[in-house]
Amino acid sequence: MTTFVELNGRSLTISDIGRIAIDGAQVRVSVEAEEKVTRAHQVLLELAAEGQPIYGLNRGVGVNKDRTIEPDFLEKYNRNLIRSHSSGVEPFATHDEVRAIMAVRLNTLLTGGAGVRLELVRTYADFLNHRIHPRIPLRGSIGAADIGLLSHIGLAMIGEGEVDYGGQRMEAAKALALAGLPKLALGPKEGLAIVSANALSAGIGALALHECRKLLETADLVYALSLESIQGCRSPLDESLFRVRPFEGATESARTVRGYLEGSSPQEASGGEKIQDPLSFRSACHVHGAARDALAYAERLMTIQMNSPDDNPCLLVDERRIVPSSNFDVTAWTLAFEMLGLSLSHVSKLSCHRSIKLGNPAFTGLTRFLTPDPDRAIGLGTLQKTVVSLDAEVRHLSAPVGPDHYSISGDMEDHASHAPYVVRKTGEIIDRMYYIFGVEAMHAAQAIDLRANANLGRGTRAAYAQIRGTVAFLSEDRPLTEDIAAMNRLLRGKIWIPEEETERSADGK
Amino acid sequence: MTTFVELNGRSLTISDIGRIAIDGAQVRVSVEAEEKVTRAHQVLLELAAEGQPIYGLNRGVGVNKDRTIEPDFLEKYNRNLIRSHSSGVEPFATHDEVRAIMAVRLNTLLTGGAGVRLELVRTYADFLNHRIHPRIPLRGSIGAADIGLLSHIGLAMIGEGEVDYGGQRMEAAKALALAGLPKLALGPKEGLAIVSANALSAGIGALALHECRKLLETADLVYALSLESIQGCRSPLDESLFRVRPFEGATESARTVRGYLEGSSPQEASGGEKIQDPLSFRSACHVHGAARDALAYAERLMTIQMNSPDDNPCLLVDERRIVPSSNFDVTAWTLAFEMLGLSLSHVSKLSCHRSIKLGNPAFTGLTRFLTPDPDRAIGLGTLQKTVVSLDAEVRHLSAPVGPDHYSISGDMEDHASHAPYVVRKTGEIIDRMYYIFGVEAMHAAQAIDLRANANLGRGTRAAYAQIRGTVAFLSEDRPLTEDIAAMNRLLRGKIWIPEEETERSADGK
Amino acid sequence: MTTFVELNGRSLTISDIGRIAIDGAQVRVSVEAEEKVTRAHQVLLELAAEGQPIYGLNRGVGVNKDRTIEPDFLEKYNRNLIRSHSSGVEPFATHDEVRAIMAVRLNTLLTGGAGVRLELVRTYADFLNHRIHPRIPLRGSIGAADIGLLSHIGLAMIGEGEVDYGGQRMEAAKALALAGLPKLALGPKEGLAIVSANALSAGIGALALHECRKLLETADLVYALSLESIQGCRSPLDESLFRVRPFEGATESARTVRGYLEGSSPQEASGGEKIQDPLSFRSACHVHGAARDALAYAERLMTIQMNSPDDNPCLLVDERRIVPSSNFDVTAWTLAFEMLGLSLSHVSKLSCHRSIKLGNPAFTGLTRFLTPDPDRAIGLGTLQKTVVSLDAEVRHLSAPVGPDHYSISGDMEDHASHAPYVVRKTGEIIDRMYYIFGVEAMHAAQAIDLRANANLGRGTRAAYAQIRGTVAFLSEDRPLTEDIAAMNRLLRGKIWIPEEETERSADGK
Amino acid sequence: MTTFVELNGRSLTISDIGRIAIDGAQVRVSVEAEEKVTRAHQVLLELAAEGQPIYGLNRGVGVNKDRTIEPDFLEKYNRNLIRSHSSGVEPFATHDEVRAIMAVRLNTLLTGGAGVRLELVRTYADFLNHRIHPRIPLRGSIGAADIGLLSHIGLAMIGEGEVDYGGQRMEAAKALALAGLPKLALGPKEGLAIVSANALSAGIGALALHECRKLLETADLVYALSLESIQGCRSPLDESLFRVRPFEGATESARTVRGYLEGSSPQEASGGEKIQDPLSFRSACHVHGAARDALAYAERLMTIQMNSPDDNPCLLVDERRIVPSSNFDVTAWTLAFEMLGLSLSHVSKLSCHRSIKLGNPAFTGLTRFLTPDPDRAIGLGTLQKTVVSLDAEVRHLSAPVGPDHYSISGDMEDHASHAPYVVRKTGEIIDRMYYIFGVEAMHAAQAIDLRANANLGRGTRAAYAQIRGTVAFLSEDRPLTEDIAAMNRLLRGKIWIPEEETERSADGK
Repeated sequence: MTTFVELNGRSLTISDIGRIAIDGAQVRVSVEAEEKVTRAHQVLLELAAEGQPIYGLNRGVGVNKDRTIEPDFLEKYNRNLIRSHSSGVEPFATHDEVRAIMAVRLNTLLTGGAGVRLELVRTYADFLNHRIHPRIPLRGSIGAADIGLLSHIGLAMIGEGEVDYGGQRMEAAKALALAGLPKLALGPKEGLAIVSANALSAGIGALALHECRKLLETADLVYALSLESIQGCRSPLDESLFRVRPFEGATESARTVRGYLEGSSPQEASGGEKIQDPLSFRSACHVHGAARDALAYAERLMTIQMNSPDDNPCLLVDERRIVPSSNFDVTAWTLAFEMLGLSLSHVSKLSCHRSIKLGNPAFTGLTRFLTPDPDRAIGLGTLQKTVVSLDAEVRHLSAPVGPDHYSISGDMEDHASHAPYVVRKTGEIIDRMYYIFGVEAMHAAQAIDLRANANLGRGTRAAYAQIRGTVAFLSEDRPLTEDIAAMNRLLRGKIWIPEEETERSADGK
Repeated sequence: MTTFVELNGRSLTISDIGRIAIDGAQVRVSVEAEEKVTRAHQVLLELAAEGQPIYGLNRGVGVNKDRTIEPDFLEKYNRNLIRSHSSGVEPFATHDEVRAIMAVRLNTLLTGGAGVRLELVRTYADFLNHRIHPRIPLRGSIGAADIGLLSHIGLAMIGEGEVDYGGQRMEAAKALALAGLPKLALGPKEGLAIVSANALSAGIGALALHECRKLLETADLVYALSLESIQGCRSPLDESLFRVRPFEGATESARTVRGYLEGSSPQEASGGEKIQDPLSFRSACHVHGAARDALAYAERLMTIQMNSPDDNPCLLVDERRIVPSSNFDVTAWTLAFEMLGLSLSHVSKLSCHRSIKLGNPAFTGLTRFLTPDPDRAIGLGTLQKTVVSLDAEVRHLSAPVGPDHYSISGDMEDHASHAPYVVRKTGEIIDRMYYIFGVEAMHAAQAIDLRANANLGRGTRAAYAQIRGTVAFLSEDRPLTEDIAAMNRLLRGKIWIPEEETERSADGK
Repeated sequence: MTTFVELNGRSLTISDIGRIAIDGAQVRVSVEAEEKVTRAHQVLLELAAEGQPIYGLNRGVGVNKDRTIEPDFLEKYNRNLIRSHSSGVEPFATHDEVRAIMAVRLNTLLTGGAGVRLELVRTYADFLNHRIHPRIPLRGSIGAADIGLLSHIGLAMIGEGEVDYGGQRMEAAKALALAGLPKLALGPKEGLAIVSANALSAGIGALALHECRKLLETADLVYALSLESIQGCRSPLDESLFRVRPFEGATESARTVRGYLEGSSPQEASGGEKIQDPLSFRSACHVHGAARDALAYAERLMTIQMNSPDDNPCLLVDERRIVPSSNFDVTAWTLAFEMLGLSLSHVSKLSCHRSIKLGNPAFTGLTRFLTPDPDRAIGLGTLQKTVVSLDAEVRHLSAPVGPDHYSISGDMEDHASHAPYVVRKTGEIIDRMYYIFGVEAMHAAQAIDLRANANLGRGTRAAYAQIRGTVAFLSEDRPLTEDIAAMNRLLRGKIWIPEEETERSADGK
Repeated sequence: MTTFVELNGRSLTISDIGRIAIDGAQVRVSVEAEEKVTRAHQVLLELAAEGQPIYGLNRGVGVNKDRTIEPDFLEKYNRNLIRSHSSGVEPFATHDEVRAIMAVRLNTLLTGGAGVRLELVRTYADFLNHRIHPRIPLRGSIGAADIGLLSHIGLAMIGEGEVDYGGQRMEAAKALALAGLPKLALGPKEGLAIVSANALSAGIGALALHECRKLLETADLVYALSLESIQGCRSPLDESLFRVRPFEGATESARTVRGYLEGSSPQEASGGEKIQDPLSFRSACHVHGAARDALAYAERLMTIQMNSPDDNPCLLVDERRIVPSSNFDVTAWTLAFEMLGLSLSHVSKLSCHRSIKLGNPAFTGLTRFLTPDPDRAIGLGTLQKTVVSLDAEVRHLSAPVGPDHYSISGDMEDHASHAPYVVRKTGEIIDRMYYIFGVEAMHAAQAIDLRANANLGRGTRAAYAQIRGTVAFLSEDRPLTEDIAAMNRLLRGKIWIPEEETERSADGK
């Protein structure tokens, strides 16, 4: 893995966001992109000099759009714009989130659509590379540009507000001094360029997509283990079925699961009579596949978002025009997140049903609730309430935020996507699902132990080993709260899924 | 337009469904497909002869899957299966819906995945071509195959139950006699083949997608007219903006709107000062585009559905295998419909906001509520409640049905997509939106009349003419209930959108 | 039952609405109430003569509130108000609904809050008693007065628009002539008085509450039958339990169920070992009770609504004042309907779970899916999909419409309750639940037949007899679609619940 | 305020919970209640001695209900039950929440329904009075008894698990030693008594209701200030209007607001022409009243809950019987919380609309967005996004969790209320609304300052002073993020509402 990511305004990926935000990679701006930024700024100045009215440069923003900004007021105007728009509500972004947000805005500025100076662009890179992380509140945007929140980045750049730096929360001015960076003096239209973007939604959204792909791989892996634990029928995973009915996500999920099972002997062959399992086992790859389809759709749209200008007005450098736009509209991919959340709710529920089935002797041939001792121990029965209650939260969170909005800003803003909340709740769904799959994994491992003669596959064997390295076989009743927490930590970790699998599927779409 | 559609199991489109279902086209099965069906049936018989257990052929279905069906019981078994599964609830499918359902099932049978006799396949075609339309209740399926509903088609084929024929509701047996068709004697696995498919959901879903595409063209057209009626800013429609930020749906919507406006002089040029309109005008193509993106996603998945076997078990002819499958799972495209519904709710709301804005002198420069006489007439003000109340219904309907399901059928069916209800409510959303756009069109036409100097575009001029051919200028207050109904009829009609546009976009995706 | 209901503006009940609307009772206005109306009108005229500005009398309505209405324009103004506000969307109200709507508005006019002439009041009574039923569209109100819809009553009164009369749809003028009634000439403020009320929401809402009480009695009765069919444990119904934990609805439900079971021998006594049944049996009275609590809450608020003026401005006769008000706000009881809908969704789901359990030998000791012949018949298994799919509709409908609303009418109306849609969807929930309980009743009766030694209670015996008079024992598989429909008709009928029970609980709250 | 609350199992109030949980009051058990507990335990032992099968005493729990517990296994059985049911998920309860939970369970034990020893009862009191607060995870219960969570209290009592004590998190055993308390040895049925209760849901729910009443008083007060800031029409608050239309909550809200306004001169009298304000002003008391009605309904049911046994089986002391029950069902009041949440969403939205209106010169006669300097400052415009985005969260949270549940615990638990999640999200709604009202208060104070000639009422004057003691007049643009946070802290504090008002309304219901 490289220690830096080169940005050019055209090819930023979800994985790149993961590298910058989570792995802490540095950023570099490509030479070509720097040249484009410089050229764009030159064009912007020329257009303004020709007397064109430009929103946010020589005209006010929002309902003040009909107000003229005098040149001598320009710098104060931009500073004032940053200050006056800083209006957010806790919680504040994590380090990972701050980095994702800034990386996205940096990359979209490289398209030249804003027309800002190269100096501003470099300030984003400096902040990322010095790990100066502005304190950004996460609430206060309706998702038609994250204005009131992104302004806190601007505050920090001009030496106001607060940042996290070197493990400490401090005044932005102090951090700049410590890092040897100057306070930024804002150029024309730069106040607007900093605040008028969807980088908060897009950055946090990209992180959620990154995490979601890993979750779906976990889902496939835990399902594979559960399937082995009941010696379930593998026919529905048959490659040919997906050749004749080629839904992409399902095809991918089934291929992944077959990979995990590789090397395991399909025990059901012996019996010969067991034709079908419950749908939570039989249809798992189709349902996981539906989520993969939704994810792929969201990833595709988000990739466009991260590599396009969302500026209004938008500078068209080659055409030497600056055009009022609605580039700030992010309804399309916000809806993709809503669908993704709904699809995850299906995935979540299926896992719960499998945990429940794993406690049912009629389906497993094992003990009730997988107890090691029917006379003296309850087994895993109480975990059913755990997952079912979390699944209710998933279901509730997956309810769409919807188009509901009422007109604000002098009746000008009569539409909203609520993107920031939608991406945030997608993350919350994922959080809960790791717990749910952790509990399913506890069931599967317990069933495998009780069955004793397990002959696991390449992937499932590795998974089983990690699970048993984390929580012990339930040999008598014990409090399970800590086991649940430990399994959650295991599954959220990076090394949980067998190496070759993660590599194979990383950005595999 | 051809008077028949040839089916081959591989290339059925949404438009084809429109032709068969709405336009009443006949169907033909391609020679190649007939051969495939024949070959598949032969393979099935051979596999059974080899003693393989086959679900629905020599094994029971559902929780009875472990029961053996004796050969001499076979025909009775299949008839019994049809009868025993006939359990639905009104309302009954319309003629259009029956045709869409049967066409979809006919086409998926042509994949050979069911292994039925050619005779059964031809019976579907005969029913469609003789317009014998079984009475199919629409409720009673959870969307993992529409078993209890599709069985009513089987009932009619064996001469039981009721059909609509020649404009009359009658006993199926009588209709068969009148049409000169025999009662079908069911062959092996044919009971299962008839009932175990998602053709009801898919057929009605395909019709909804067909209608939705037309609705979105109406949305673009009415919006274009509203934009002209306020002499709104066209910059956000600029082609270059969509080149640098290439979301497909938005690009398509903006291109369509620009086409409708072609030939109209952009009056705002004169003023020069008006930089921005409210978002309901400015962002319309982005929001319509989000719906177009969602629609394209749904169309893509539905097209796979209509051209793939959803049989369980699924016969793999070339491999001479019959494999237990979860081909009946339709979660992926059901979720696409949920997203589509949510996107339509955004589109709906934007139209309402435009109607409201058109009644506001601050945005139009015209009279309050577009009254022709501020002293004596209220104008169109009361229509705001009309659309807002319908929009609340759209919003409510767009709430997802969700993954909520509890285990049935002996605890085997612990997952459901609820596809039939989801596609049905999509249709209900569309119904309401035609009313909403009808009211917006009334506003736009009234504003254009009040402005007097309209210089409309190619598409908007034609639209205006049709509106005014339907409802008169409001010269004094009058009851509007009938006007609303008339506008709804106009917009639902086929000839409303300028010819060249519909051709251009039909199946253009 | 009396053939007329006397109205006095103070004591109208939900049951009265049932009598007028469903049973077709006539109405009489009490002498006292007529005097109050006359006195109120006199006060109104005096206040106007004193020069007070009165909204809707000498001032415009809505955003036109600052416009003065000249006296010579008064009659035309009122007629115009009726016409201009007539803007609704199909479907149209049924006869029952029209009667409920008009009865409610008639009664609230008797409070004197509107100040209209006695003549107008009598016109409502005449329409009800001559069964002249205006065609009222049901959609187009946001629930802050049902203005655009109620205006259709006014249209009919002045001899415009359409009505149903003598079994025919006809011009209002013709019906008035046939009935020997004059066309109404509108007096001061009468246009407003006719349209500015929530009578449509309240009337239809009252009908829904009326129907809901009957549904909950059906729920108790069917549950009682199911409990007997599994020889279930009756301990949770023990009267003393509700004495120490006195939730009213649960107490009432348990008492009702115990009544139905009276005379039946509690078979479980013999075994002695069976301590607990599944919650769908054990907690039924608590869940039915939660719905009864919600219903009682809704009934209480609705009764206030139907006996209070919802006029704005509101005439305070005794104080000789007319005061601008927000009496049109119905948020409180609209929310009660939302809660009621949610509670019904719980009730619905419990019934489905019982049907499923009745098909499970582990709980019944009977055959799988209550088949009469395990080798040859599937039994009632397919009905599980029927009820589960309807229950999904119930769940979806029970989602609240919510506070979502955007500002209309010149930014004056920035709140809405959406009462008309909420009450309508409550009715749709009830519709579906009768099907669901019909299917449960089919299961219970089948189980009782299979058990053979049934010794039913007073109420359950009567219920069983009616069920078996409607659908026969399932002795071999047959199509069930018509059985489902027949059971629905039975349960919706009036005589289904044992006489003494309905009498006991009618208006028992 | 007393420093302790006496508990007797019959009269615990919401306010008492506030005193114990938030104010840290100690608890005392009444002599009469101690006697009842002692008597109940004696009866339980006698019944067991007579050989009656008792769930949780000499029979297993849940699906193990048919297992016999041998006497010599009894203590181990109870300890094992506590351990095996400890399965929850973070976050952990706050101190306030732990106290509320334990107080509720203590009080319900005093009803004698559990039959436990006095020693166990006293242990609850000891924990509360020594402030030994067990670490209780908040997630893992579906709301049919909070088994997996309450077991953590049992763990601490027997000296296992963790607690917070003296400001530190530590092993329970250590805290007991430090406090000089013994480890509890569990008696018969005490494992079940500790875990099988809804005390977690009820305790946290009671806290939410406590907080909600304060919120609604804040809502009235901020609304009153806003009304004064626009010199709004007070007619809709007229006492007589609520006499003729006596909805309780609205009546109470209007009376409260009139109290706050007392002493202020109603300026609108002068103008005489302004008849109506937007509904967000006009209907505020009706909408706040709808929430007050919902709150009163929830309080009434919760009070029953907190003073009744929710044990299963339930000991009926006087009758010397122990009866299997469904006392653990809490559907009725869980639905009340859902309605309450929906009502709060209406209240929230109205506040947002008022903030928006306060920025609109057409309604205030003041500057755009209440800017102090239209040429140089944007004013409060950006706060519109702040509140609208939070309101979207409120709306989303107010979506009901619903009846969705699938059968667990060996298919025995096929119903769930999801009470713990429902009460928790009610608290989250309240959290957001304090921010929203804080922003409205900022608007109102700014408007009052700009208007300059304010003549405030008794309550509003005090409120204004506190607001201005917290955030300064906006004399030029500044970042508002900290102001928002400060206002939130102010409103959440206890002394914000004028003394006499809080006293008057405390438990005034």
